[in-house]
Formats: sequence, structure tokens, C-alpha cells
Amino acid sequence: MSFRDHIASCNNYDPARVVPLTAGGARIGLLRRDNAAALQRFSDVFAVGSDGVELVASGDVTAVSRAIDGVVDVLVADGCVPKWRNETFDVAPRWGMPPVFRLDRGAVPFFGTRAYGVHLNGYAREGDTLRLWVGRRSPAKQIAPNKLDNLVAGGIGNGHGIDETLVKEAEEEASIPPGLIKHAVPAGAVSYRMETRLGIRDDVLFVYDLETPADFAPENRDGEIVHFELMTASEVLQRVRATSDFKFNVNLVILDFAVRHGLLRSDDPEYLDVATGLHRPLD
Amino acid sequence: MSFRDHIASCNNYDPARVVPLTAGGARIGLLRRDNAAALQRFSDVFAVGSDGVELVASGDVTAVSRAIDGVVDVLVADGCVPKWRNETFDVAPRWGMPPVFRLDRGAVPFFGTRAYGVHLNGYAREGDTLRLWVGRRSPAKQIAPNKLDNLVAGGIGNGHGIDETLVKEAEEEASIPPGLIKHAVPAGAVSYRMETRLGIRDDVLFVYDLETPADFAPENRDGEIVHFELMTASEVLQRVRATSDFKFNVNLVILDFAVRHGLLRSDDPEYLDVATGLHRPLD
Repeated sequence: MSFRDHIASCNNYDPARVVPLTAGGARIGLLRRDNAAALQRFSDVFAVGSDGVELVASGDVTAVSRAIDGVVDVLVADGCVPKWRNETFDVAPRWGMPPVFRLDRGAVPFFGTRAYGVHLNGYAREGDTLRLWVGRRSPAKQIAPNKLDNLVAGGIGNGHGIDETLVKEAEEEASIPPGLIKHAVPAGAVSYRMETRLGIRDDVLFVYDLETPADFAPENRDGEIVHFELMTASEVLQRVRATSDFKFNVNLVILDFAVRHGLLRSDDPEYLDVATGLHRPLD
Repeated sequence: MSFRDHIASCNNYDPARVVPLTAGGARIGLLRRDNAAALQRFSDVFAVGSDGVELVASGDVTAVSRAIDGVVDVLVADGCVPKWRNETFDVAPRWGMPPVFRLDRGAVPFFGTRAYGVHLNGYAREGDTLRLWVGRRSPAKQIAPNKLDNLVAGGIGNGHGIDETLVKEAEEEASIPPGLIKHAVPAGAVSYRMETRLGIRDDVLFVYDLETPADFAPENRDGEIVHFELMTASEVLQRVRATSDFKFNVNLVILDFAVRHGLLRSDDPEYLDVATGLHRPLD
């Protein structure tokens, strides 16, 4: 493994394998061609052409969401979508625009709609040594079981804001009280586009940093993380560079933290790949 | 103006207007089609095809550089290249690879070879107030006269390293002594691709931050900066957002600093454009 490998695997998207999903002409998703073909039988919801798929279900957000849920039901039964996650994400052409519909998280990669999450780098300083909080994901997680993770990470569900999601996830995942999480510093976003077995992940992760006090110890409440530990930043970077111990996208969040905090030297042979590989421009 | 406008103007590159310049099959530059056509008469140096231009001059770096200098002489006489800058940049397929030739800085946009620079954000803290050092460029500068600039900025000339360039420019541009500049923190790179009147700027700026002590006052020695002042970060961001007072690419370096230091709130309507617009992936 190398830093480059992690970046490349999160950006293995190939536009030739995909057609746009549009609503009123605006792109809202990216359908792999096999997934687009699987939508042909739902002609009251989607118009499938050779160059793209247009959403044709009519009505308000609730009505369109219900029509799409009906499609997802069939896709789950057919095994095209693994299962319902019972958590919905807003689907819109761009962040901040009114949603066109709400989509169950389990179907997000099938449709390639953009998903937004929040990741929190928790760190502590002791003299010149910087340590990062690292969580180990539960073996029961559907995505990346047992992998290492940031202190807090979660998807932004429909109707929820960035800060609101951060506060809620910080409490559930690591028992970080509101009085501490309010000191988290917004530090940008990591973005990538990745083909998986299920379709396309078009992800934007809002990144925050939080320096934790000496007496802080995170405690998980929702069962998603089984263990936390403080690792020196150099050990974390070594593991990112040499292994796949961290969840695929967490490698990118850690590399972004490393660049911003001066933990990578500019003569590192992978420095430019990292500095220019973590923020795929949005289209 | 808006943050987005600055990002868009530095990324106005349109691949349809350009053909690759290659050496041994590897891309080393980006020629606008009119510039490619202007190379047809130099058939001992370039083979101009409809889909690209291949370097055919043979010999070692010195010999190839000399052959290209002969071409640049004619381009300057014809007005395709404004003038010799008498400073050369290494040309290679990627950073860190051995150079194919050295090119006068004045001809870099004509050939669209990648150029590397170093930019230093100098800042000072006083309580909760963060101030940035801002320089005003000399009216005699060929590029962006009178515009506002970072504390230190300079191109990486042939054979010189990043840190070496930073130390040299810090001394010449702002009288920053070696004992202070060694505390500069590498913080990544800003990258963009821009069409100008002359051709293509394919730029990578290595970014450093330096917190300056209370008794520090920069002094210019090389005549490139006529005046320095400390501005509050909020005033700087306001001027970036609303004006073109800063040199085109300095807007991007300042926005990168702002994101990394938590100076932009995640609910800023331009937050995602900034967070994903400053680090064009290299190809």
C-alpha cells in the first residue's frame, strides 16, 4: 500500500461506465450502466435512454420519494440493493438546494446520488507529540467491519445540518458533550468518487478537528465502535501508508489532517499526490 | 466577485482548446492550438500533428534546452512570447522526475509546461485576532502589478528545491532570517489550470504557514514588493470575496489558509466550492 493507492482506490470512478441520472435536466446521480438497465421496467418512475436516465415520477418530495421507495423494494428483492438501512439521505443537484426526493441510504450507491458525511479528527497534544483518537468499528457494521475509524463519523441524514449531525454523532459515538464539541474547528471537506460492487459512491465528507483535553476519554454509546485508543500521529501515518487497517475513506481524512497540520514533509515522494488528491472538484 | 469567481477564473482551462506537448510519449506541456500551429516551422525541434506535438530535438538536457531557446528567440521576435525572463524552470512529466529541458520562465505559458512555486502565509495572533501579512506588488512587475500578495511567493527555478526556494525568497522578499523561516510549516499545495492570453498556466503552489513574532516586520530587498501590512483575517477574506485586489492565484492561497485555520464556517454558502476547488488533481 501507499498513500497514492488509498487515494486511487477512492477515485477509481470511470465516466465511461456510467450514465447520468437527471431530474428536470439537472444531474442528481450517476448510474452504472447495468444499474441503469435494471431501471427499464419502472417506466412510470424513470425514462431510461442510452445516454442517461431521467426521473419522470411526478409530485412533491413525498410523492417522488414514495415512488422511488417502490422501486427500491424491488431492487432489494432482486439483490441489486443489499438491504434497507432505514435512514434517508436528501437527493439534490447540489448541496443546499431543495431536495428532489429522499433516498434510503442502502440504495444511495445504486443511484450514485451524492452523499454527505461529517468526520471528526480528535487529537491530543503532549509536548511535541500529537496523538490521534482512533476507533475500531464494530464487527457488525455492514460497511468496513473491524476497520479503524476517526473519533466520530456519520452520514448527514435528510433534513439535518452539518453542525447538528456533528453534535449528535459526537454524543452517540464518543460521548463528547455539547460543551466540548462546540470547540470543533471546521477544516474543509474531503471528496472522492468511487465505484463499488453496488454502484457509485459520490461522497463529500465535511471535516472537523477537535483538540481533546487531557482528562477526556471517548465512550461509544451506539455500538458502532468497540474500542478507542490514542495513537501517535506518526504511528497512524505509518499504518495508513503501509496497511489497509483504516476504513477506505478514513485514510483520506487522516491524510488531509496530516497535510493541514504539517505532519507530512514537502520532500515526501507522495506529498503532491496527497496535497492534490483529497479534494475532487464537484461537478 | 465571489470566492467561486476567483476559483473559476484560475480554472478556466478548456481541454478542447489544447493539444498535449509530449516527449518520448510522456506529456510535458499543454499547447493551445494556435501556439501548436506556430511551432510547425520548427520541424527539427517539434513534430506538430493534429492531436499533439512531440518534441523531436535530440541530445542531453543542455542540447535540447538550447534547441528550444532558439525557438523561443523567434517566438519573442514574433510577439508570441512577451520577453525573456532570464530565469529557467525545469520541464518534466512529473515533479521529482529528471528534467527533459530547461525553459525560460517567459515561455512557460506558451508551452503550458507545469510550473511550481512556493507561497508563504505569514500571520500573527493577538488574543483571538488573527492577522495576515499582505504585500503590495511593485508597479514594475510584469504579472499583476500593484496587486496584493502573500508575505513571500516565488517560482521554483531549475535545479532548486522547495525549501531552498522558500529560504531564498523569504530573505529577498521579506528579510525573513533563516532562524525564523525554519519554523514555516508545510501545509499542502494549491493547484489550478488557467488559460491566459499567452497560453496555459498549469501551476502548483507549495504552501507554507509561518506565525511571526510580535517584533517582526518584513522588509523587501529585491524591489518586488513596495509595502507590507498586517490585515485582520476577516478584512482579508472580505477583500478576497468582494474584490480583485489580490493577485489572481493569491486569492486561492488565502482561501486555502482560511479553510485550514477554521476561518470559514461550514454554513458559508461557498464553503464546499472553496473546500473542493483549490486542489485540482494532477494528471
